[in-house]
Amino acid sequence: MFEAAELGRKVSSAEYKSRVPALREELLGVQDRLRDARQPSVIILFGGVDGAGKSESVNLLNEWMDPRWLLTRAYGQPSDEERERPEYWRFWRDLPPKGRIGFFLSAWYSRPLVDRVHRRLSRAEFGARLDEIVDFERGLTDDGALILKFWMHLDKQSQKDRLKKLQKDALTRWRVTQEQWDNWKLYGRFIDAAEEMITRTSLANAPWTIVEGADEHYRTLTVATSIRDAIHKRLGEGTGNSGAAPPSIAQAKGRKAPALPKTRRSKILSQPTILSKLDMSQRVDQTKYRTKLEQLQGQLNTLHRKAQRRGVSIILVFEGWDAAGKGGAIRRLTAAIDARACQVIPIAAPTEEERAQHYLWRFWRHLARRGRVTIFDRSWYGRVLVERVEGFASPQEWTRAYAEINQFETQLVAHGVVLVKYWIHISKGEQLKRFRAREHAVYKRWKLTDEDWRNRKQWDTYEQAVNDMIERTSTRQAPWTLIEANDKYFARLKVLTTVCNRLESHLRSY
Amino acid sequence: MFEAAELGRKVSSAEYKSRVPALREELLGVQDRLRDARQPSVIILFGGVDGAGKSESVNLLNEWMDPRWLLTRAYGQPSDEERERPEYWRFWRDLPPKGRIGFFLSAWYSRPLVDRVHRRLSRAEFGARLDEIVDFERGLTDDGALILKFWMHLDKQSQKDRLKKLQKDALTRWRVTQEQWDNWKLYGRFIDAAEEMITRTSLANAPWTIVEGADEHYRTLTVATSIRDAIHKRLGEGTGNSGAAPPSIAQAKGRKAPALPKTRRSKILSQPTILSKLDMSQRVDQTKYRTKLEQLQGQLNTLHRKAQRRGVSIILVFEGWDAAGKGGAIRRLTAAIDARACQVIPIAAPTEEERAQHYLWRFWRHLARRGRVTIFDRSWYGRVLVERVEGFASPQEWTRAYAEINQFETQLVAHGVVLVKYWIHISKGEQLKRFRAREHAVYKRWKLTDEDWRNRKQWDTYEQAVNDMIERTSTRQAPWTLIEANDKYFARLKVLTTVCNRLESHLRSY
Repeated sequence: MFEAAELGRKVSSAEYKSRVPALREELLGVQDRLRDARQPSVIILFGGVDGAGKSESVNLLNEWMDPRWLLTRAYGQPSDEERERPEYWRFWRDLPPKGRIGFFLSAWYSRPLVDRVHRRLSRAEFGARLDEIVDFERGLTDDGALILKFWMHLDKQSQKDRLKKLQKDALTRWRVTQEQWDNWKLYGRFIDAAEEMITRTSLANAPWTIVEGADEHYRTLTVATSIRDAIHKRLGEGTGNSGAAPPSIAQAKGRKAPALPKTRRSKILSQPTILSKLDMSQRVDQTKYRTKLEQLQGQLNTLHRKAQRRGVSIILVFEGWDAAGKGGAIRRLTAAIDARACQVIPIAAPTEEERAQHYLWRFWRHLARRGRVTIFDRSWYGRVLVERVEGFASPQEWTRAYAEINQFETQLVAHGVVLVKYWIHISKGEQLKRFRAREHAVYKRWKLTDEDWRNRKQWDTYEQAVNDMIERTSTRQAPWTLIEANDKYFARLKVLTTVCNRLESHLRSY
Repeated sequence: MFEAAELGRKVSSAEYKSRVPALREELLGVQDRLRDARQPSVIILFGGVDGAGKSESVNLLNEWMDPRWLLTRAYGQPSDEERERPEYWRFWRDLPPKGRIGFFLSAWYSRPLVDRVHRRLSRAEFGARLDEIVDFERGLTDDGALILKFWMHLDKQSQKDRLKKLQKDALTRWRVTQEQWDNWKLYGRFIDAAEEMITRTSLANAPWTIVEGADEHYRTLTVATSIRDAIHKRLGEGTGNSGAAPPSIAQAKGRKAPALPKTRRSKILSQPTILSKLDMSQRVDQTKYRTKLEQLQGQLNTLHRKAQRRGVSIILVFEGWDAAGKGGAIRRLTAAIDARACQVIPIAAPTEEERAQHYLWRFWRHLARRGRVTIFDRSWYGRVLVERVEGFASPQEWTRAYAEINQFETQLVAHGVVLVKYWIHISKGEQLKRFRAREHAVYKRWKLTDEDWRNRKQWDTYEQAVNDMIERTSTRQAPWTLIEANDKYFARLKVLTTVCNRLESHLRSY
């Protein structure tokens, strides 16, 4: 989940300085129109790793916007007053009225998370607390509120560096106490709990945005433009989050919404995606490949038979670019597995019967019995890839699909399934080379369709969709494995190694 | 919660026979139009007490409608096939395609409920299972499905009678095994768990309807007309349950929806509400009243001081008809309580500040510290009473309010608050008498407004709203107390007795 926020994204000082004036003006503009429209109330929550810039962001936004119409709340230990009332009392009391913006630091997420990290809550209790949050936020968005949640992330080393830097400066030293260092030591637990929390509370009505916190310029621009765009979108379109949509505010006021700011977020922040960080030069020579392949296939066969005896099911999901070599990798897997226990499900456009059902229905029906291996050649992730990019699913449909998919996979894993998900990645140049080769070899020509060329034109849009998919669905229980596949040998070996390792550790934990 | 389904509602054979032909025709009609529109898929779930008519209803509907387009599923112990897959696999597999209707007997509710009754699930685990159900159903309705859930209720004695009757008949004897009798012995536990289940899973997108199951004619007409109306409404208006509403089906097809069936449910079943079952003749004479009042006020004072010392808060909610005597009852309470620890909050139309917030915000802000008594003279129930009847809240808003209110009250009770809710009831005739008296006594005239007369005209609509309110929000943790208030003395004593008993049992359980 946090891989996509550890890419070292940066914005140069020069770019930052050139962007800020327009952005501040736009922020003031949306704030103004929001007040004018007298709805919705905007709740902006910051959570994340200590030192990743939560309070800096809020301070800066307070500087940039009109503070008379802003409300900022941070919460320490509850006061006597607060302890004597139900926990949410202080949050309810602080909610911004319609037309205003409220910034909340950690707020209702803080106590459940800290209590879980320190094991004062069991996993089930933690889950129950998260469900309370979901109910609370849903109540607010049902009423028309706009909720934005930013998770400011730092990896463990960066957090250490950051805390040390704060300590060195006399002005910021006070912010780093023993508590921060104690927390730092629990980084692993903190991140585990945070991941579960984000997975469970990132729903379409109140989604989390994970922000890489290391570079101040990058994180500031990301947060500020997201806020600008979200409020602008709500004001311009005026649709509610769910249920009874309030009338479009622009409509209601009988005037046109102002044009979208010209500087769109994606443009401002044309930043590396998680895919762009892969080392695509990794190769394996043929001799080594042959030896290693045989060895891995042998290992997989042994493990698979062990799994079969114990009734452990394996589900493998393959997603990747056209011509990335999914088919080849799958064949090297199936060669090692008892064909009677293995099933490859190619996912193309849904049939008429499938179209008459929920999009997850066709995947449920293919779930196999215990001890079997099911390989999905493309999968339910089509919802957030092709259906998103091609507009077959509405933004509302694909945004809520992340949570739906996580819930689906939770059920698989809870049932004891070993779930391995691969994104088979090739560079754009490598794809072109392979397309050309397919054009020239008669026996391969059937593999190349007009659709492949059309998809290729949308490369950047797909890449963004892949990045979002990994950010939102790579969970500890069902992580994505990214396969650098410019070299097919390397790719196939990595696919096999991954499934062997996952299976081995699963069987060991029995 | 189940009080409203223990009223002995009946439909005579003659009325039943006269209604059925038109109803069957209408059911076939909506089924036909549903198939024609190819959406939505309709999921109709039956749960409830054994013998309350779950399977009879499904059988009858299968007889009345076109069985080629119906699908009926009951679930026993999972098969090997099913056990080897995640629990929901069998339910996903059985979902009706779009344009079809599926009847489900207990289905996904069965196992959590039974496991809870037999204490194989802790309360927290039961809660987590219910949340899974909520997620599952929300996924389906987000996708456009229409979900109706009927809870067929019988009180303990009626269930016993019913099981005995089934046993006597050679044709139905097979249905009553030792298991049914074992379950009957656990009736109390079963009802407790069912109440928690219904409270937690009755959300606006997939609400439960509680049906009194004792009279076959009544329950059949209720279920059949509810189904007819719900499908008709969806086809006619075509709005989705939430989020991206599919276009109105009638619109999409470029034709007008057929007129609503003339026989509306409320008319067909102009049945007694829970209020109509109260014994309104209960009286207390003045001498007895005076003695008893003094005694109860003394008792309350002692209990209240004890509660105060222990930091136990009390919240009293008063709802009732205009001129029912809420004010008088409240004054008899406050007379017994230390004024410094007590606060009466009269709830009128919201202020401008309150209108700019979620409707529950103004109640949250009035929550007092520990050891205090707060009396709400009218309350958050305005949402499902006046706001519903007068159309200030949209149907979507007031339907989801039941769950929101239950969540709110759960937080109060979890915090240790003693919550007592009164409906002060007078008959329509008694109200008229009191209005007239107010008109004639100069010093009382200010108490009577035009609005009171307007509300009176809507008596029946209000009565239905009160009935629904009690059905959906009278929970074990926060039950409603109905006060027969044609006689003010009787009413005031019952108000005092109730709060004394509740306080006493709460303090004892410390």
